[in-house]
Amino acid sequence: VRTGIPEVVLSIGKSPEKIAKIIKACGNKGLIITRLNESKYKKIVTKLPKNCEVRYYKEGRVMIVGKHEKVVEGHVGIITGGTADIPVAEEAKIILEEMGCKVSMVYDVGIAGIHRLFRYLRKLIKKNVQLLIVVAGMEGALPSVVAGLVDLPVIAVPTSVGYGAGGKGIAALLSMLQSCVPGVVVVNIDNGFGAAAFALKILKQINSPSSP
Amino acid sequence: VRTGIPEVVLSIGKSPEKIAKIIKACGNKGLIITRLNESKYKKIVTKLPKNCEVRYYKEGRVMIVGKHEKVVEGHVGIITGGTADIPVAEEAKIILEEMGCKVSMVYDVGIAGIHRLFRYLRKLIKKNVQLLIVVAGMEGALPSVVAGLVDLPVIAVPTSVGYGAGGKGIAALLSMLQSCVPGVVVVNIDNGFGAAAFALKILKQINSPSSP
Amino acid sequence: VRTGIPEVVLSIGKSPEKIAKIIKACGNKGLIITRLNESKYKKIVTKLPKNCEVRYYKEGRVMIVGKHEKVVEGHVGIITGGTADIPVAEEAKIILEEMGCKVSMVYDVGIAGIHRLFRYLRKLIKKNVQLLIVVAGMEGALPSVVAGLVDLPVIAVPTSVGYGAGGKGIAALLSMLQSCVPGVVVVNIDNGFGAAAFALKILKQINSPSSP
Amino acid sequence: VRTGIPEVVLSIGKSPEKIAKIIKACGNKGLIITRLNESKYKKIVTKLPKNCEVRYYKEGRVMIVGKHEKVVEGHVGIITGGTADIPVAEEAKIILEEMGCKVSMVYDVGIAGIHRLFRYLRKLIKKNVQLLIVVAGMEGALPSVVAGLVDLPVIAVPTSVGYGAGGKGIAALLSMLQSCVPGVVVVNIDNGFGAAAFALKILKQINSPSSP
Amino acid sequence: VRTGIPEVVLSIGKSPEKIAKIIKACGNKGLIITRLNESKYKKIVTKLPKNCEVRYYKEGRVMIVGKHEKVVEGHVGIITGGTADIPVAEEAKIILEEMGCKVSMVYDVGIAGIHRLFRYLRKLIKKNVQLLIVVAGMEGALPSVVAGLVDLPVIAVPTSVGYGAGGKGIAALLSMLQSCVPGVVVVNIDNGFGAAAFALKILKQINSPSSP
Amino acid sequence: VRTGIPEVVLSIGKSPEKIAKIIKACGNKGLIITRLNESKYKKIVTKLPKNCEVRYYKEGRVMIVGKHEKVVEGHVGIITGGTADIPVAEEAKIILEEMGCKVSMVYDVGIAGIHRLFRYLRKLIKKNVQLLIVVAGMEGALPSVVAGLVDLPVIAVPTSVGYGAGGKGIAALLSMLQSCVPGVVVVNIDNGFGAAAFALKILKQINSPSSP
Amino acid sequence: VRTGIPEVVLSIGKSPEKIAKIIKACGNKGLIITRLNESKYKKIVTKLPKNCEVRYYKEGRVMIVGKHEKVVEGHVGIITGGTADIPVAEEAKIILEEMGCKVSMVYDVGIAGIHRLFRYLRKLIKKNVQLLIVVAGMEGALPSVVAGLVDLPVIAVPTSVGYGAGGKGIAALLSMLQSCVPGVVVVNIDNGFGAAAFALKILKQINSPSSP
Amino acid sequence: VRTGIPEVVLSIGKSPEKIAKIIKACGNKGLIITRLNESKYKKIVTKLPKNCEVRYYKEGRVMIVGKHEKVVEGHVGIITGGTADIPVAEEAKIILEEMGCKVSMVYDVGIAGIHRLFRYLRKLIKKNVQLLIVVAGMEGALPSVVAGLVDLPVIAVPTSVGYGAGGKGIAALLSMLQSCVPGVVVVNIDNGFGAAAFALKILKQINSPSSP
Ligand SMILES: Nc1ncnc2c1ncn2[C@@H]1O[C@H](COP(=O)(O)O)[C@@H](O)[C@H]1O
Ligand SMILES: Nc1ncnc2c1ncn2[C@@H]1O[C@H](COP(=O)(O)O)[C@@H](O)[C@H]1O
Ligand SMILES: Nc1ncnc2c1ncn2[C@@H]1O[C@H](COP(=O)(O)O)[C@@H](O)[C@H]1O
Ligand SMILES: Nc1ncnc2c1ncn2[C@@H]1O[C@H](COP(=O)(O)O)[C@@H](O)[C@H]1O
Ligand SMILES: [Mg+2]
Ligand SMILES: [Mg+2]
Ligand SMILES: [Mg+2]
Ligand SMILES: [Mg+2]
Ligand SMILES: [Mg+2]
Ligand SMILES: [Mg+2]
Ligand SMILES: [Mg+2]
Ligand SMILES: [Mg+2]
Repeated sequence: VRTGIPEVVLSIGKSPEKIAKIIKACGNKGLIITRLNESKYKKIVTKLPKNCEVRYYKEGRVMIVGKHEKVVEGHVGIITGGTADIPVAEEAKIILEEMGCKVSMVYDVGIAGIHRLFRYLRKLIKKNVQLLIVVAGMEGALPSVVAGLVDLPVIAVPTSVGYGAGGKGIAALLSMLQSCVPGVVVVNIDNGFGAAAFALKILKQINSPSSP
Repeated sequence: VRTGIPEVVLSIGKSPEKIAKIIKACGNKGLIITRLNESKYKKIVTKLPKNCEVRYYKEGRVMIVGKHEKVVEGHVGIITGGTADIPVAEEAKIILEEMGCKVSMVYDVGIAGIHRLFRYLRKLIKKNVQLLIVVAGMEGALPSVVAGLVDLPVIAVPTSVGYGAGGKGIAALLSMLQSCVPGVVVVNIDNGFGAAAFALKILKQINSPSSP
Repeated sequence: VRTGIPEVVLSIGKSPEKIAKIIKACGNKGLIITRLNESKYKKIVTKLPKNCEVRYYKEGRVMIVGKHEKVVEGHVGIITGGTADIPVAEEAKIILEEMGCKVSMVYDVGIAGIHRLFRYLRKLIKKNVQLLIVVAGMEGALPSVVAGLVDLPVIAVPTSVGYGAGGKGIAALLSMLQSCVPGVVVVNIDNGFGAAAFALKILKQINSPSSP
Repeated sequence: VRTGIPEVVLSIGKSPEKIAKIIKACGNKGLIITRLNESKYKKIVTKLPKNCEVRYYKEGRVMIVGKHEKVVEGHVGIITGGTADIPVAEEAKIILEEMGCKVSMVYDVGIAGIHRLFRYLRKLIKKNVQLLIVVAGMEGALPSVVAGLVDLPVIAVPTSVGYGAGGKGIAALLSMLQSCVPGVVVVNIDNGFGAAAFALKILKQINSPSSP
Repeated sequence: VRTGIPEVVLSIGKSPEKIAKIIKACGNKGLIITRLNESKYKKIVTKLPKNCEVRYYKEGRVMIVGKHEKVVEGHVGIITGGTADIPVAEEAKIILEEMGCKVSMVYDVGIAGIHRLFRYLRKLIKKNVQLLIVVAGMEGALPSVVAGLVDLPVIAVPTSVGYGAGGKGIAALLSMLQSCVPGVVVVNIDNGFGAAAFALKILKQINSPSSP
Repeated sequence: VRTGIPEVVLSIGKSPEKIAKIIKACGNKGLIITRLNESKYKKIVTKLPKNCEVRYYKEGRVMIVGKHEKVVEGHVGIITGGTADIPVAEEAKIILEEMGCKVSMVYDVGIAGIHRLFRYLRKLIKKNVQLLIVVAGMEGALPSVVAGLVDLPVIAVPTSVGYGAGGKGIAALLSMLQSCVPGVVVVNIDNGFGAAAFALKILKQINSPSSP
Repeated sequence: VRTGIPEVVLSIGKSPEKIAKIIKACGNKGLIITRLNESKYKKIVTKLPKNCEVRYYKEGRVMIVGKHEKVVEGHVGIITGGTADIPVAEEAKIILEEMGCKVSMVYDVGIAGIHRLFRYLRKLIKKNVQLLIVVAGMEGALPSVVAGLVDLPVIAVPTSVGYGAGGKGIAALLSMLQSCVPGVVVVNIDNGFGAAAFALKILKQINSPSSP
Repeated sequence: VRTGIPEVVLSIGKSPEKIAKIIKACGNKGLIITRLNESKYKKIVTKLPKNCEVRYYKEGRVMIVGKHEKVVEGHVGIITGGTADIPVAEEAKIILEEMGCKVSMVYDVGIAGIHRLFRYLRKLIKKNVQLLIVVAGMEGALPSVVAGLVDLPVIAVPTSVGYGAGGKGIAALLSMLQSCVPGVVVVNIDNGFGAAAFALKILKQINSPSSP
């Protein structure tokens, strides 16, 4: 709220009825609803008043209710290892853009094709991104490799991609926590929202800093 | 290195002989050695040439070798929940100060005495800290509580304080990953160094930002 | 039974047929069935004799069969961190009220909005509640924060809210077990019934105490 | 503090120097130090001023500093399954007695000899204990068995007794959380102090209750 | 096979087609299929030749194909803690009876009602059962309590009854492995078949022993 | 006790003083103390009265106090996979022999040399052993392989041999629980005593059976 | 790619739309899609251009798109413990055959029937297989037993067969990692593709070796 | 043995006496003893006959007893991520060289300095190594990165380097099992011996292949 982020509701474990009620209670302050699949979204919409302004992003599973000012400036790069990581990256992207941030995306450049990664990192640096959000599942090595190559802060987001031992994001999370490259921080598995929220707090410090 | 951080060696699992060898190989570039207890430190020193310039911080278990420029400006607040968390906080503090940062510390203000916490947070904000490192063991609630009160980026550091189920920092780590307050990122248990390294990367962006 | 609690049946893993049979076998002693979703409830009802007196609470997923005396006096406060914790809180509330207790509820006052929490705690204390049941998922910090502020016994109930590492209530449970605030006890994840049953035993001691 | 419990310091992970410093800083308010083995205790004592009033309980590993009023009335029964559980039970007992409570102990009556258990429970009930603390390691069944026999509130304390799978108190903790007998609450493994602190809060409600 | 047990097929993860094929390949040797729910059973039956002799036990989820001699004598007692444990107990019972064993069952006598347990155990002993299979979920204390009361070999079967921490049979399994009562052995969670197969091997030794 | 097994004390977590006290309290009934290393044993002996009759088995870490009748007849085969499993096997052997059983041992015949295993199994069968205790660490496959070859009841004992993932007996325990060969039961990691205690109960049934 | 393996797409977590898009983007380079169930396959096919050449293997859940040269020579033996392991084995087989390899299969020869195993291993050796892939679930002992009998490299593949503790392939994986027979390597649970990909790299070295 | 590897004894959990006995029993066949620290080695040597030919490698913690032919040809590359991984790499190297293999080492080239890695990989390829053993702790990304760059078979060895969540090699192991680069196989944490043993089996196939 203080960062200008409207209230964010995690839809998991809440019925469409309950979410519609929260939206109506919220009045015309903005509201963001995350982890919302399409069929649940459709049920919610039928329960809202006609004039209620909503947008829905299917891939990122995010619903935005109402208007809010775009208050945070800055430029964030988002990188994913595979195509299965994209929904989580999209969640982060939508929230950052809603708040006024510029976002540059590089999707599907895992460590299996490391030379493509180099090319894309160079482009992101030229564009002057100030911060990287690196999203990866399976072995979760991408944030460490990126942080070893680029001198930008890296927020690592493990995704629940992968099966068997260490699957559902566990190997990725532990890898990121164990990174031998200094300067990688981590949010929970699939928590694209959390990475975006932290990025917004940093960007506010970078782009409208208080004097130390 | 690129952030100006000299190479950092984790002393765990390395013999005094091996560490002394690494130091000598390093020439007169700076070197930081972490997680080094005092008795091991004393053994290393006997193996080094007389003119080798070293400092040792007992509480933070850090040894600094050689000179390096103080290149990063900025002001970081470090908060700990209990007195047992202080060594981890000191590790972060030493590395930040070595690099040129200002650090303000508030030790032993856990959630059991939340009113003292309010007072200290107000002071830190007045001092214009740009970033908080919050160090806590046991139930690890402190970073969430702080992030709910203050609009600064919070880097949470779980510590291996606590016994029984969820002990050795596991409950603290999971709590921090599960934080219901947006904008908390996490490093691994006891990784004060990692929090400092990430903070340095952010401060560089804040205080000598590239234009987006 | 001895506390005056009628027999309680956990419906998980039992078919509607089996539950209907248990109800009929029970005669006209009271019976409480927990964790019962609505569709299963409806199937059970069709299998019961017409004159069987039942009540069903949808949100709390509890079915009450038959009459029983209201034997326990007292006043319990129930607090939840989020709206997703409400079904577990309701389970506790229904059982307490069935037994004759007064219950005061404060729902959705997580640590992300700590100032609202203060206000509500003051109200509960004014109402002279004798015991608090604090229900929270995700990082599970709420019972610790409450116990740090109020001098009442706190029974902590972790809920299976939260995804990723520490999700499904694991972080919340471990946090509560690791609480750095003295005087917090814990029941299993989502076990609203267990918290209520223990509360009833205490209230009996408080309100009709044997002389020590 | 509010319950009249003096501040309690967990000595694990703190050097004798640090603990002596905390004691001196504390002035003449009472202080309780837990999990303190004898050799560490002896080192601390040498660092304290002569007139500092201390008591040390070897079996319970507790050190009491200074005077404090005996403020809480009541009578608690403590039961252990085996002799290896006694140190944890003693920790609870010392703290309860320090605060003014009466304590009746029944040690080493595990479920392997269930008929002895019956005899002892009958005695405790005759003595009008108001609350039971049941301490058990290994399979941790004792609190459930006791709660099935007696209509008193049971606080279960798992202990780190047992080796192999489920050892170090894990099986005991999980058993207690899974208890099929209603009305058992749990504290963390070996946390005798936590059980005592909660008991004190209840006893205060029982023996000097606010009117509901 | 050598014990006279016909081949046993675990149906989990096998399609009805595959199971029908295995049955047909088997010729007229007997075959037992376990963990088979009713709808899958019905699909299989449609794929079998008319003259194929099959029996299906719904509660125990077992399908028996063909004839086989009843070769093992003896008398086994089976006890369950709750009604949700019955399917696992039935699996064991069906296999024992198919092989010629006598089985005496006592269902739903958990530790919450320990006096009923005493009564039933006395009856089983009078009937001269030679071996007990004790089936329990949740805290899994029943086999330990039984083994503390009766001087018969106890095979403990944990069941996947229970939710939250230690749920799905984990607490029950660990409890049984940690049993403080000597002479309890364990099979895996829900493995009623395994308990029966081991019992058959023992009964063969008991009732047609080789001379030592 | 009822099987004629004297009381058995697990020495882990008990001081020499406490054990000496238990021994003296026990009078002249027999007593078995397990998991007792040599140095602790020596300390205990110095605290006992001169005329106290004790035997100590170093490899099996068992101390026997006093006399007891040899009451159980029978013949058990014990097999180990490696030499590191021998202490656990010895614990079982000592207890069986103390009670009057005949024991035949085959040590160090893991699955890496399966042809040697065949030879030894044939010998054991010729000797008419009635029951096998199979002790194995690391991958724990030996009990399953043995049970696939021999038609005797197999009690599997995992040992804490092995490092890395699944080390300390975890892989062995899980393997044994998952055995695809019917009729393997399991005791906890390193619990040689438990296997012997169960074997004694079976042997009593085999060799002095009650009539079913 | 370099080994001549066309790109391989894991279908888990990707919608039919997304997979169809990947196929179309791929042009006429070959593509392999794994873990694809039949209904998802059918949806994909409707979205592809008519002339797109595809093959689908139902049991192995693999879809092959386009043509690619058969570039790797060699002969691999694949062995499974049970029939439930066959889909994983088929995945490996299809990929090996697609690349030009000869494959000899031996399905359903678990350690419960070890004599059949001997016979089959002898046949595989006569056929001059150069490498074994051994697929097993439950206790996962088969690769160790095979490696103890045959002097060929063994790639062990655990499968998610088995329920209860150590189920879903965990016991099998840990067993294989703990194998006491030297020379067993492991891929993740159900990862038939990974085993095949590694085998191809080895076969390339064996059959068109660079000179050392 | 069949690969020409002499018997290998894991020294963990075996006393110097026991190991000396195994050596003497072994006669003049070669024997390799692994995981042997220096002080234990020295104790063993004093118990051996004078003419017993032994070599001890301190860093790799390996003791070689007796002579054995060098029977396996080939060239293996070994790469480590950090200096703390070297003991495990040395274990593999010693065993490979003992058997006649050529070994090229590249130590301390983790992903934090990826450009150095490229240079070294090029050198290894020029030297015509036939197989890579890649040893890494912490996040364990190195084998995946290497396998993405080079078309040689990669055997990944996780090491117990790293603290906190995923420490002791767990993150490294899970990462390697989850590798998104095809063709990486894994041995257990710290099992340098296992990697070498498998490599020897492959090299035998490569360099003296049977005709497929
Ligand atoms: N996608 C998400 N992942 C993690 N946390 C979230 C997400 N969306 C919302 N939250 C947080 O979770 C909390 C949920 O609380 P509630 O909506 O009251 O149950 C909110 O305070 C958010 O900060
Ligand atoms: N205290 C610490 N905690 C976590 N990682 C560290 C610490 N100190 C150093 N490191 C990192 O761990 C790596 C250790 O590599 P090495 O010293 O080569 O074994 C270095 O690259 C550091 O970035
Ligand atoms: N209900 C059951 N639980 C555990 N194991 C079983 C069960 N039913 C059969 N089995 C065993 O599991 C193995 C399954 O192998 P398969 O049928 O070939 O996949 C058989 O050898 C049986 O011994
Ligand atoms: N460093 C090692 N790591 C893993 N396994 C080993 C190691 N050294 C030896 N082994 C294996 O472990 C087994 C130990 O058996 P034993 O020496 O009889 O206890 C041997 O068969 C070896 O194959
Ligand atoms: Mg990709
Ligand atoms: Mg404090
Ligand atoms: Mg909320
Ligand atoms: Mg006892
Ligand atoms: Mg019941
Ligand atoms: Mg051996
Ligand atoms: Mg089979
Ligand atoms: Mg390094």
